[in-house]
Amino acid sequence: MDLGILEAAARACLDDATYDYVAGGAGDEITATENVTAWRSMRLRPHVLHDVSAVSTATTVLGCPVSSPVLVAPTAMHGLFCPDGELATARAAVGHGTVLALSTVASTALEEIASAVPDVLRWMQLYVQKDHRISQALCARAQAAGYGAIVLTVDSPVLSKRVRNERNAFNVPPGMRLPNLVPLDHDGSDLDLYSLVGAYEPALTFDDIAMVREWAGGLPIVVKGVLRGDDAARCVDAGASAIVVSNHGGRQLDTVVATAHALTDVVAGVDGRCEVYVDGGIRTGADVLKALALGARAVLVGRSVVWGLAIDGEAGARAVLDELAADLARAMAFCGVTSPTAIPRDLVAL
Amino acid sequence: MDLGILEAAARACLDDATYDYVAGGAGDEITATENVTAWRSMRLRPHVLHDVSAVSTATTVLGCPVSSPVLVAPTAMHGLFCPDGELATARAAVGHGTVLALSTVASTALEEIASAVPDVLRWMQLYVQKDHRISQALCARAQAAGYGAIVLTVDSPVLSKRVRNERNAFNVPPGMRLPNLVPLDHDGSDLDLYSLVGAYEPALTFDDIAMVREWAGGLPIVVKGVLRGDDAARCVDAGASAIVVSNHGGRQLDTVVATAHALTDVVAGVDGRCEVYVDGGIRTGADVLKALALGARAVLVGRSVVWGLAIDGEAGARAVLDELAADLARAMAFCGVTSPTAIPRDLVAL
Amino acid sequence: MDLGILEAAARACLDDATYDYVAGGAGDEITATENVTAWRSMRLRPHVLHDVSAVSTATTVLGCPVSSPVLVAPTAMHGLFCPDGELATARAAVGHGTVLALSTVASTALEEIASAVPDVLRWMQLYVQKDHRISQALCARAQAAGYGAIVLTVDSPVLSKRVRNERNAFNVPPGMRLPNLVPLDHDGSDLDLYSLVGAYEPALTFDDIAMVREWAGGLPIVVKGVLRGDDAARCVDAGASAIVVSNHGGRQLDTVVATAHALTDVVAGVDGRCEVYVDGGIRTGADVLKALALGARAVLVGRSVVWGLAIDGEAGARAVLDELAADLARAMAFCGVTSPTAIPRDLVAL
Amino acid sequence: MDLGILEAAARACLDDATYDYVAGGAGDEITATENVTAWRSMRLRPHVLHDVSAVSTATTVLGCPVSSPVLVAPTAMHGLFCPDGELATARAAVGHGTVLALSTVASTALEEIASAVPDVLRWMQLYVQKDHRISQALCARAQAAGYGAIVLTVDSPVLSKRVRNERNAFNVPPGMRLPNLVPLDHDGSDLDLYSLVGAYEPALTFDDIAMVREWAGGLPIVVKGVLRGDDAARCVDAGASAIVVSNHGGRQLDTVVATAHALTDVVAGVDGRCEVYVDGGIRTGADVLKALALGARAVLVGRSVVWGLAIDGEAGARAVLDELAADLARAMAFCGVTSPTAIPRDLVAL
Repeated sequence: MDLGILEAAARACLDDATYDYVAGGAGDEITATENVTAWRSMRLRPHVLHDVSAVSTATTVLGCPVSSPVLVAPTAMHGLFCPDGELATARAAVGHGTVLALSTVASTALEEIASAVPDVLRWMQLYVQKDHRISQALCARAQAAGYGAIVLTVDSPVLSKRVRNERNAFNVPPGMRLPNLVPLDHDGSDLDLYSLVGAYEPALTFDDIAMVREWAGGLPIVVKGVLRGDDAARCVDAGASAIVVSNHGGRQLDTVVATAHALTDVVAGVDGRCEVYVDGGIRTGADVLKALALGARAVLVGRSVVWGLAIDGEAGARAVLDELAADLARAMAFCGVTSPTAIPRDLVAL
Repeated sequence: MDLGILEAAARACLDDATYDYVAGGAGDEITATENVTAWRSMRLRPHVLHDVSAVSTATTVLGCPVSSPVLVAPTAMHGLFCPDGELATARAAVGHGTVLALSTVASTALEEIASAVPDVLRWMQLYVQKDHRISQALCARAQAAGYGAIVLTVDSPVLSKRVRNERNAFNVPPGMRLPNLVPLDHDGSDLDLYSLVGAYEPALTFDDIAMVREWAGGLPIVVKGVLRGDDAARCVDAGASAIVVSNHGGRQLDTVVATAHALTDVVAGVDGRCEVYVDGGIRTGADVLKALALGARAVLVGRSVVWGLAIDGEAGARAVLDELAADLARAMAFCGVTSPTAIPRDLVAL
Repeated sequence: MDLGILEAAARACLDDATYDYVAGGAGDEITATENVTAWRSMRLRPHVLHDVSAVSTATTVLGCPVSSPVLVAPTAMHGLFCPDGELATARAAVGHGTVLALSTVASTALEEIASAVPDVLRWMQLYVQKDHRISQALCARAQAAGYGAIVLTVDSPVLSKRVRNERNAFNVPPGMRLPNLVPLDHDGSDLDLYSLVGAYEPALTFDDIAMVREWAGGLPIVVKGVLRGDDAARCVDAGASAIVVSNHGGRQLDTVVATAHALTDVVAGVDGRCEVYVDGGIRTGADVLKALALGARAVLVGRSVVWGLAIDGEAGARAVLDELAADLARAMAFCGVTSPTAIPRDLVAL
Repeated sequence: MDLGILEAAARACLDDATYDYVAGGAGDEITATENVTAWRSMRLRPHVLHDVSAVSTATTVLGCPVSSPVLVAPTAMHGLFCPDGELATARAAVGHGTVLALSTVASTALEEIASAVPDVLRWMQLYVQKDHRISQALCARAQAAGYGAIVLTVDSPVLSKRVRNERNAFNVPPGMRLPNLVPLDHDGSDLDLYSLVGAYEPALTFDDIAMVREWAGGLPIVVKGVLRGDDAARCVDAGASAIVVSNHGGRQLDTVVATAHALTDVVAGVDGRCEVYVDGGIRTGADVLKALALGARAVLVGRSVVWGLAIDGEAGARAVLDELAADLARAMAFCGVTSPTAIPRDLVAL
């Protein structure tokens, strides 16, 4: 799995509209692009002459041991990319030894993941619906099925404008089920992505973090979609157990700040009171290392895992995770650091 | 109406010289281009977990309620773009619920707008002529016809150098009338744009703001074309009721500062004593939001409205205004703000 | 004369090696290019509502009235570009009302200029030769022929590396005479540019400014090729009457600072004790205006005048000067200034 | 030898995989590219009117006189580029009058260099092997053979990821010997570059500088691969006699800081306690001059020397060194400096 040509290789396996659905961002895709270039334009200042004979990428997230700080970001409808859908992704996560954050918009029921891949470290991503009963039920299901956290997405109060999808008239393919999002008594007719997303709650506030936690029986709440330190502090005040610095892969509002550039502010806002993760534009081990140096506990990877699925299902997704962790280990060795939890801040040039 | 391809779609409806007349700027068009890129290169820092179930773009300008802070900038000769000319634009402004700033160089008489579209919120743009009597008469006509303000353009003391127009030998088309600019007793011969523009007063000073206000019977004077805080302060001292930060769409002097970059200085110079608007390069809702965050009360949109007219007359112009306001509402929701009058400054990264 | 396509138009009139000789710079031409882009990337902050009914570009240099602050830079061998050579340039300078700085490497004798175009405001450019007697004689000739100043070039102690010339094997064409540089008793054989340039004095120091002034019977010495404030101060201490901020059009050492970027430091170093001029990359009136705002008394234009000569001899050179001054007048009016001697510093954004 | 087309000329002499092996860097080659552009984007502020009739590039390194501050960097397997391999390089170094740093991965035995080219100023580059006895023996051999210093490479604890080599399946060509790296009792089978590099010691620390010095009988240790001032200071504390600011030509970890940007920090960290050299991206005399101005005693040149070897063996390598020194002398003259040891810091713009 050559990460340098990963996206191109996946593109060759997908129809254009599906490829565009994954690759695209909001508006002119300025933020989607800058998410990548922001990490690349940061410079490392490696330490030499440190003993790096025993580099390990192992760490913990929310107290849970993982083999590397590379987590699987929640992304929709893996059934678009391989026959086994999220089951393949779950098995890849087990193989690599990391967390799968399952999307509300997954094409596989959260219970099926839990029963078929019981060893997977699993978190459940949540879009709160206007009809709170649906979301409350989902949280209860997740708790019952052994999910270890709720990843509460807070950057999606309204529909975004994704030009590629509009031009391609992209929608949920006929026959695709979204069993975590659509009521079990759905009549089986085709699903409309925009209606579904349009049903998300636009009135969510910091106070609702406690509400969601209650729905989930006290599971930790990971708040995803924060780009400011002041907001992050309020999340922690309101009971968040972790923050994901994210702009939804540049897919919600174009020209928002790149996650690499927002990370430092959020880390300062949180001030050590909870873990901070980051997603968006992570493509190499050096990118991961920079995120760790700037204060992230771990990163989430979305598109790259999907490209792996599209190329070779479980094996492809696994290879992406393994390669990225190996690239991180290499970058750590070159920088004289041996653990994700001991990365000096000044490894990244100001 | 896909704003992302608006200009291209309009270009397909226009002859090259007319397209160039609208699209072009002065000199090498460095400022015309930077007007656009300056907004794009500013980064938003969105707030999350604010209740955005009730976003409204409604606001007021000079105390007059409008449905959005997107006003129609004065631009010349709408008869070039659709048969109904400025009547179509006026109806689009009514439909959207905003202000039309009618150009002195309009192809429709100001009185015809007022009588045919009486509901339009209308301001009259003014170039002061060397022969002050012409301008004085125009102000009196505007006041009599229910115009609510005079938009005094102050960035046009001499003819600019527009390379595209020179190469295309662009001029007022035969038969085109400019009934606000040319005396009613004009002999009907073809009009020469350069002679008309060359008749503008080059000796205008801050003191003349009061003169124009007197001509207009005390109507508010909106001074358009200011790029510096010190000048803006002097305008307010001299009686201006509002300032438009503008470089005339990059059409007067190339390499002047982009309006996005001048806005903060002007807002500081005005120091809350009057409203500040801005035009130039506004293409998306995020652009509008950034202008508001930096202290603008509203924006004016010129070229985009013209492109709408060229594509589909009144309906096209209306669609442009509606889409831009909808895009603003979306950007506001993504940023956790619900009113144009309550946008925190730090929504835009320094 | 469309300045926007001036170089392209001239190129069509010249053989490639001659075009390259003029257009090219040292090394990778980074400085030659940046000379142009540096002016373009500076932003103007125009003043409005100043009376600009009487803009004049007239000023003085070394006390001598000129119609505009656009002087003719010394450039070599005008005989390459039109049959009349520097006679055409001198007539263009008279026509425009400015100073001609005649090159030591001119293809016309300084006395011939003086006798054929007696009205021309003329300065004599000097490369000091290793054999000082040659230079001393040239200064005496210049003084005798009514030249008003010596422009002492100080940036040429050794041969530069000009890649285009090397690849083109460019040299002085057979039959071309250089009557100010080559002894009158030269045997008529072909001249070698590199031998001639290689004979320049590499041991010139600040003390030699006084020596040259003595050679020239007390004529003012304009020191050309200074890029630092400390050097400029030493020049003034040593008797210089003016400084030209110049990097020889980017033709001596690549990656030296662009003149637009060096100007402020030199102006500060001189601290008002003498006039400062600047050359390099000046292509538009806005460029000239920026130079004046930053403290230059005037600018020198080299390549553009040569392109004018190549296109249409005297008339072409004259048109270039006239167009540039007209463009300056237009830029001044748009910025609310009426005289080259009263340009506020803050017209250029920091 | 036209340095401006050096790489292109060499490419024409090499098969693609060999060319890529030399030209390529790690990852996306961002650092490899920036090594070059960083020097180019620094601006020189030349002094004028200094006597430059006697410019000399001569200097000393570790007390040893050299004709210029351009040293030959250690690079692998010169047998790939010309039949005589490092013998040609050594002769070129003698011809130019500079130091050859012989690579551990040379295709010529260090003793053969010493006996065949006894006049060459020679340093021995060292990768410490996991099996320290190999490295200890190599140091003893180097000392016995008259090498004047050990260049201890400290930036290679693990294998780097070089995309070009992977795609080309590049390896040591059959028949190529690496007599300084591979035990003398090697069975003659083909060598595997990755196994060899994988045997480097990953546990090297600052304390090992003293160990290596002991192995080498007290020879000075030049620590190569430092990019930080704090690390450099620790090297000096640990007994280093000089530091080479290097990122291994951008070949180890992509997106590490360019050497031009790291130099100032290292010079400050060393604080005059030992000499500092720099390599990476040096292509012109101006690049060398900038390095000297920023505090480097000398530069090392790797790829350019290899290109010279590929084009014309010893003569080619010699021409590269001579041209670069001549270009340095020219740049010095244009900047008013006459010795590599007296370059003012402010010759480079901040």
